[in-house]
Amino acid sequence: MDQNYLRELLNSLKKDEITIEDTIDILKKLPFEDLGYARVDHHRSLRKSQSEVVYCEGKEPEQIKGIVEALARSGENILLTRAGKEVCAALESTGLPLTYYPSARLIMIKQRENSVLCGNILVITAGTADLPVAEEAALTAEFMGNRVERLYDVGVAGVHRLLTYQDMLDKAMVIVVVAGMDGVLPSVVGGLVDKPVIAVPTSVGYGASFGGLAALLTMLNSCASGLGVVNIDNGFGAGYLASIINKQSGSTVK
Amino acid sequence: MDQNYLRELLNSLKKDEITIEDTIDILKKLPFEDLGYARVDHHRSLRKSQSEVVYCEGKEPEQIKGIVEALARSGENILLTRAGKEVCAALESTGLPLTYYPSARLIMIKQRENSVLCGNILVITAGTADLPVAEEAALTAEFMGNRVERLYDVGVAGVHRLLTYQDMLDKAMVIVVVAGMDGVLPSVVGGLVDKPVIAVPTSVGYGASFGGLAALLTMLNSCASGLGVVNIDNGFGAGYLASIINKQSGSTVK
Amino acid sequence: MDQNYLRELLNSLKKDEITIEDTIDILKKLPFEDLGYARVDHHRSLRKSQSEVVYCEGKEPEQIKGIVEALARSGENILLTRAGKEVCAALESTGLPLTYYPSARLIMIKQRENSVLCGNILVITAGTADLPVAEEAALTAEFMGNRVERLYDVGVAGVHRLLTYQDMLDKAMVIVVVAGMDGVLPSVVGGLVDKPVIAVPTSVGYGASFGGLAALLTMLNSCASGLGVVNIDNGFGAGYLASIINKQSGSTVK
Amino acid sequence: MDQNYLRELLNSLKKDEITIEDTIDILKKLPFEDLGYARVDHHRSLRKSQSEVVYCEGKEPEQIKGIVEALARSGENILLTRAGKEVCAALESTGLPLTYYPSARLIMIKQRENSVLCGNILVITAGTADLPVAEEAALTAEFMGNRVERLYDVGVAGVHRLLTYQDMLDKAMVIVVVAGMDGVLPSVVGGLVDKPVIAVPTSVGYGASFGGLAALLTMLNSCASGLGVVNIDNGFGAGYLASIINKQSGSTVK
Amino acid sequence: MDQNYLRELLNSLKKDEITIEDTIDILKKLPFEDLGYARVDHHRSLRKSQSEVVYCEGKEPEQIKGIVEALARSGENILLTRAGKEVCAALESTGLPLTYYPSARLIMIKQRENSVLCGNILVITAGTADLPVAEEAALTAEFMGNRVERLYDVGVAGVHRLLTYQDMLDKAMVIVVVAGMDGVLPSVVGGLVDKPVIAVPTSVGYGASFGGLAALLTMLNSCASGLGVVNIDNGFGAGYLASIINKQSGSTVK
Amino acid sequence: MDQNYLRELLNSLKKDEITIEDTIDILKKLPFEDLGYARVDHHRSLRKSQSEVVYCEGKEPEQIKGIVEALARSGENILLTRAGKEVCAALESTGLPLTYYPSARLIMIKQRENSVLCGNILVITAGTADLPVAEEAALTAEFMGNRVERLYDVGVAGVHRLLTYQDMLDKAMVIVVVAGMDGVLPSVVGGLVDKPVIAVPTSVGYGASFGGLAALLTMLNSCASGLGVVNIDNGFGAGYLASIINKQSGSTVK
Amino acid sequence: MDQNYLRELLNSLKKDEITIEDTIDILKKLPFEDLGYARVDHHRSLRKSQSEVVYCEGKEPEQIKGIVEALARSGENILLTRAGKEVCAALESTGLPLTYYPSARLIMIKQRENSVLCGNILVITAGTADLPVAEEAALTAEFMGNRVERLYDVGVAGVHRLLTYQDMLDKAMVIVVVAGMDGVLPSVVGGLVDKPVIAVPTSVGYGASFGGLAALLTMLNSCASGLGVVNIDNGFGAGYLASIINKQSGSTVK
Amino acid sequence: MDQNYLRELLNSLKKDEITIEDTIDILKKLPFEDLGYARVDHHRSLRKSQSEVVYCEGKEPEQIKGIVEALARSGENILLTRAGKEVCAALESTGLPLTYYPSARLIMIKQRENSVLCGNILVITAGTADLPVAEEAALTAEFMGNRVERLYDVGVAGVHRLLTYQDMLDKAMVIVVVAGMDGVLPSVVGGLVDKPVIAVPTSVGYGASFGGLAALLTMLNSCASGLGVVNIDNGFGAGYLASIINKQSGSTVK
Repeated sequence: MDQNYLRELLNSLKKDEITIEDTIDILKKLPFEDLGYARVDHHRSLRKSQSEVVYCEGKEPEQIKGIVEALARSGENILLTRAGKEVCAALESTGLPLTYYPSARLIMIKQRENSVLCGNILVITAGTADLPVAEEAALTAEFMGNRVERLYDVGVAGVHRLLTYQDMLDKAMVIVVVAGMDGVLPSVVGGLVDKPVIAVPTSVGYGASFGGLAALLTMLNSCASGLGVVNIDNGFGAGYLASIINKQSGSTVK
Repeated sequence: MDQNYLRELLNSLKKDEITIEDTIDILKKLPFEDLGYARVDHHRSLRKSQSEVVYCEGKEPEQIKGIVEALARSGENILLTRAGKEVCAALESTGLPLTYYPSARLIMIKQRENSVLCGNILVITAGTADLPVAEEAALTAEFMGNRVERLYDVGVAGVHRLLTYQDMLDKAMVIVVVAGMDGVLPSVVGGLVDKPVIAVPTSVGYGASFGGLAALLTMLNSCASGLGVVNIDNGFGAGYLASIINKQSGSTVK
Repeated sequence: MDQNYLRELLNSLKKDEITIEDTIDILKKLPFEDLGYARVDHHRSLRKSQSEVVYCEGKEPEQIKGIVEALARSGENILLTRAGKEVCAALESTGLPLTYYPSARLIMIKQRENSVLCGNILVITAGTADLPVAEEAALTAEFMGNRVERLYDVGVAGVHRLLTYQDMLDKAMVIVVVAGMDGVLPSVVGGLVDKPVIAVPTSVGYGASFGGLAALLTMLNSCASGLGVVNIDNGFGAGYLASIINKQSGSTVK
Repeated sequence: MDQNYLRELLNSLKKDEITIEDTIDILKKLPFEDLGYARVDHHRSLRKSQSEVVYCEGKEPEQIKGIVEALARSGENILLTRAGKEVCAALESTGLPLTYYPSARLIMIKQRENSVLCGNILVITAGTADLPVAEEAALTAEFMGNRVERLYDVGVAGVHRLLTYQDMLDKAMVIVVVAGMDGVLPSVVGGLVDKPVIAVPTSVGYGASFGGLAALLTMLNSCASGLGVVNIDNGFGAGYLASIINKQSGSTVK
Repeated sequence: MDQNYLRELLNSLKKDEITIEDTIDILKKLPFEDLGYARVDHHRSLRKSQSEVVYCEGKEPEQIKGIVEALARSGENILLTRAGKEVCAALESTGLPLTYYPSARLIMIKQRENSVLCGNILVITAGTADLPVAEEAALTAEFMGNRVERLYDVGVAGVHRLLTYQDMLDKAMVIVVVAGMDGVLPSVVGGLVDKPVIAVPTSVGYGASFGGLAALLTMLNSCASGLGVVNIDNGFGAGYLASIINKQSGSTVK
Repeated sequence: MDQNYLRELLNSLKKDEITIEDTIDILKKLPFEDLGYARVDHHRSLRKSQSEVVYCEGKEPEQIKGIVEALARSGENILLTRAGKEVCAALESTGLPLTYYPSARLIMIKQRENSVLCGNILVITAGTADLPVAEEAALTAEFMGNRVERLYDVGVAGVHRLLTYQDMLDKAMVIVVVAGMDGVLPSVVGGLVDKPVIAVPTSVGYGASFGGLAALLTMLNSCASGLGVVNIDNGFGAGYLASIINKQSGSTVK
Repeated sequence: MDQNYLRELLNSLKKDEITIEDTIDILKKLPFEDLGYARVDHHRSLRKSQSEVVYCEGKEPEQIKGIVEALARSGENILLTRAGKEVCAALESTGLPLTYYPSARLIMIKQRENSVLCGNILVITAGTADLPVAEEAALTAEFMGNRVERLYDVGVAGVHRLLTYQDMLDKAMVIVVVAGMDGVLPSVVGGLVDKPVIAVPTSVGYGASFGGLAALLTMLNSCASGLGVVNIDNGFGAGYLASIINKQSGSTVK
Repeated sequence: MDQNYLRELLNSLKKDEITIEDTIDILKKLPFEDLGYARVDHHRSLRKSQSEVVYCEGKEPEQIKGIVEALARSGENILLTRAGKEVCAALESTGLPLTYYPSARLIMIKQRENSVLCGNILVITAGTADLPVAEEAALTAEFMGNRVERLYDVGVAGVHRLLTYQDMLDKAMVIVVVAGMDGVLPSVVGGLVDKPVIAVPTSVGYGASFGGLAALLTMLNSCASGLGVVNIDNGFGAGYLASIINKQSGSTVK
């Protein structure tokens, strides 16, 4: 709650520009817009200082269209995650400037330019099959104004491959490591650097990978310090966390 | 691998100050000290830019003493985690400057002063029983040169308690949230701030908490963005990650 | 077993209006109707004081039709849960007054009016994707004669959203809270009210949500008191339990 | 937040009895008492309309003593759960009126009389080994002003045992059913009554009971409607939920 | 190994009708027929005293046809389990006397009459959705020469339904109880009878039934004695076990 | 409920030897004896045709003593399972004829002789460490009047060991197979015989045996037909089930 | 890193044929070919002394084609695993010599002849449904130059079937045992031989096989010594491990 | 079964030196020695070509003593695993030449010298806490006649540590890699070598390591080929498997 706004409100009350009961009512009314099936929260971008994000899975395309139209009125940029083709189709009639990334299942609606943050975010994958999740992370970070470098398919089956990219590791402010199957790569990267590593397990694998559980447990139990883990296949969450860490570092590039 | 060292080495080779075979040998010999049961790695603090950390669980007190004595020769600070009383007793004869935190099971050996980082780290707990893990996180961060604030026992059973501390949330550079049982607190904190939140599940609880699994899953599935999760009861890992995020932000306090 | 009925029966026996063997037979014959594949229990609505409910999953449409026709003869209202379109189609030829709710997968057959209970039931969801389960709960409660209010998409990612609806929380006799992913919302609601909260985990989510397990465990381990939990996606069970709690409170509205 | 209090506060502001800045400060200061390790929340009993409850597991006896002394100043009744002997010993010097129930691990501190609620709560166990959890539920409900009946050791191995107690089932407003091993009893009770049943799985059992998981799953999947489930061994939660359901029914006994 | 056969063989050896090396070879050659992908074991029906059973899941229809034709040459009856329509189609050209039960996914090939065993096997289900598994059990037992009675849809949601069928319970030699969801019925039946009960969990259910795991655990932890449990949905195994128990009881009917 | 008793009762009613209200009362009063903490069911041995069994785990020694004394008045034999030394000590003052088997944790109280059943029960173990569970099974079966043979330590690590005991396998009416670790033995035995095999997983093992879960799953998934599985370490349940199967076979020995 | 190459490089440096900075650059540049989505590692076959293997699951057919074309330039043999028809189709236009094994989902590209290793590898399956995994193992081993014998469908339901093949067991250098459901066969084989056994659990089964978990746990807990276990359905891994064990034995056949 | 022995036996039969019935009896009597609780199998060392191994967990010290004395009569070497101090004490009175390794919980009884195998076995650990399991593996391999090298505490937190030991990796015939927590090390080693790697997960860790499950799953899902996995903490099994692989390679050292 904003103290200035509160101060003005109480001032108005004191000046009899507003009654006590109205003041109470105002204190209760927060600026939601009600679509029936979803409460659109226009102040979210102020409070969380970010553009809007809509998670599409489990929502009807028509519901998503309604939410997006309500959000778009504010002129904000909007990111839609886990968005299938049918979502993209439903949004076309809105006339909003869409970009669709089918492999990452992301839709970006860019209505204004972000300023670009200084630090680099490096996104690494163990294998080629981890690309969709990695792209979800990388594109999310780019959407939020970060410069992103990609280093794909450097899995531990040949750890020497990774060692040749020490420069990229050194240059990054935050590193996102995406890996399925044994989920070993974040531990190896974490042992080589002295910066935040965000570990993203993927559901790539079969048998005793149990849909990414094996990779998740590997990362949670990592012997390397400095790792934070996100949910299986949660590329968006990793990109988002990387971005707010990068933002904390302000304008300085180490 | 340090390029300057490499350059000097190759220069010496060129100047015939060293033979090819000796050069190969030197390239292979890395500066380990071998205690038989543990390889003490003196260059770790250079490479990872941190003081040394010794994880005590599963090691014999005499083994730990040997490791600590080897490390201490470098003049580094040393942090011992998961250290019981018997470890403390075994170290006493070393004459090193020990401080023991029994509830957090930490031992600090401070041989030189760290410079202090600017940003605050805020450590929050849901309940009183989460204190040992929270203290492990807070003390680790302090050991690594961070200023730490503590906000304990503000669990969601009374979410209004937390809302009265918005100022502390605003001031912090990174927030560590420690919670057992339902593990709900990090989600609530994550919904209120726009900065990195490190979520630490604890094994506090009974029945279907399954030793912290319930809290862990809650945190991994959080609807709030910007969370990174560490292992159950891993206060050290959370403090360490918070510290390197804080360090990335250099000297600026937002 | 009804003592009055027993008393009359024994009286008849004493008056030689019935033989001992017939008495024994009557004591054994309970009023089932046998369709071969399902025993239709006409007295259930007396015993449990409710209308009839048919769980459709795993039953053939023709079986369901037979069961419904047998039940309908009594003039009772009938609720069909987990009913797909093919069930709806199979029932059309019965000429019974059907209403189909496809998202909630419910079919209501209303042959007589329920009296309406006084207390309100409030159904809350964390997100838009939880709507089908929430509607199953809300419609079930309405079918059983309750007034239902809905408060959807007030998830904890913005907990302040919920706080603006304190009035609705205060007015309700029982609250049903439906949430997937981290399942955090029931804990937050439970911390704000002093009335029964029925927590319904949903299978909304991915990765380590493990089909709703994460949300279920969160709710079972809630730090807030006064929660009763039902099975994952069991909107019907939540609506039913809310209804019989509401019914216990008789005609008084607090 | 209490509207009356808010109204008075704003009135004082209007009457210049208080400044704007002080009003803002008051709005921010909530009535916590800070013990360093635990925030004691004196308004909780108003907000949740209950006496205070202290969960003891994982807290140091001295911490608990401090919390209890702070709470006791308000004259409230206090219930301590999961309290071992050492807690009881630590509290003796406070001079407060303690009653200790070692099997249920409860301590009651009664400083004033509750009014007694009209409806009965019936607590049923499957076996003798479930008694500690059942007593935790029953004593909690009694502490909160409910009349409690107990029906112990009527497990399904002889389901006819239960049928002879139909009268007790009929008389109760809410029924708590406590069962370990196969956890079958709540399903059977739920099939016989038309009132809220709170199912409490216990960790009684061995092998594939997996610490109460088997009983928990049985109850969550119950074919009988009207069940709400609480955590394994959570007698307190069951007694608490039963009590607030009973309270909703006001003064009428059906 | 049959001692008589061994005796004759050794006699032949002694009488020089066979050489030592040939004797060794005969001792090694067991009467398999090799189809490349499956070893058809003609002596199985002698050794296990049963007709042949072919488990179809995961086998190609053409493979199954080959196996059946090889087995059929012996004139034995053959039972095919988990058989889809495509298996039935593949077998039609064999000209063997097939009967297909699509719901139970069984195909019977009866080339000769079994003698009928005296004791009854009673197959009970909790719900209508458990019928396919129950029929798999019942038909298997009938195929093996047992008289089978069926008592379907007597689940515990109305336990009184079951009590009216005490006669059927009393008459049976073995009882097979099939139940999904909470899996409570075998415990209730087991508490009412003094004879072997074979408990069959089914995958009927949703959410925390975890594909039948909940029902399986309930049955394994049953408080009632005298239960043997088979795999989830394993109607065949239950019918087979019931049959060999019934066979042990010889010609007497109790 | 016994029809003869009912018939006599109704006769008495008709003859005015008893009033209607008394008849109703008698129908309701079942012959329990109430000890407060446990309902002792004297008719159980009639209904289930067995001696009494008391499961001791989780019961106080004094409670057990009370239950045993109440049961003993009927002159029945009593079996106490999961009985530690302290139970044995508590029972000594009763003067009842106790035999204690510490490894199997059984206490037998024999007040009268059972008739001996004809068929043999064979109890097999994979290893020496499975003996306590096997003895619990064997002694339970002997207590219930069965002749028991034991074949211990014939695990599959040397499957040829088992083949040399084909005679014992052939002679038995029912076979109980007890195995921990991989739980392989019941599958092998089940492949060699054509009679009921009761599989008992034990918690013997370490690591991925997960307290017997591995052995349990092996047995439930057995490729051999004719297996019924009981809970982990449930020797009593296996002995009981074996006994009632043996009893079904009446007086004939095959 | 190859010492000879290093020696030559340093020699060149000494002879001024190369500068220090170029030497440093060469030490850093490893011979990868970068396709954007996958780093093709031409030196892998030297380092690991094997042909190339491409795991196809989760990769786009066009990506796979690109990888294969890059690898094929070296003249190496290439094995593609988990390859569906669409992969085969995508590779056709490359003109490379493909052989496709649809059941095993393998594609072999043979550009040169391997020398054949002396020792035999024996691949055994429990059932016919395990064939695809077994063929993946067998074909992988053949691709790597091993002679492979197959012994299929000798599951433990008839353990005597296996005993007749002692000769094949004796002749093999390594044995791969493939089994689903109870996963018992590797334990039995392991008890009969004194050579390395590679156990491969398959996902064949239903219910409590939990996608191969049951078989996996059986094998990990095997009482027989000398077993190494690979992932569920990992026929490739088993064939690969068998091959490198066989290769270690050089040219001698025991 | 030994064909020569069989041949002689049948020859004796032919020469009338033995009767048919005696021949049958001999064929049935295998050379077991029966101690009541354990069948001692003197021919095991012939059949499996190894010395004897006794697994001590769950066996009484007196039972173990009996087994050892029976085995020792053959003059074989004996290895006792999972042996606590009390086992050592019980064996002292036997006068056999014992060596006790308390950390590895092994007892060796060496009655004759093994010939030494040529190839090296290398045992690697990730951390110091993995030593007991690693020593169990190393000592087992030495007991079986292998030369063993140890490389301890080279965990991935500093993967460069491992790279400096490429020589040791190159020299070994088989490598055993022991790791707890994240279990990453075997994947890294497997990526560096082209020889059999036996991966041993340990229970070292806490929280989401779930007693070694995390490490186990990591290893089973390893992206590196050529790994065989054994049970958690199964150092013995790893040493045994390494030894028989080494033995297969005969006398040649590559």
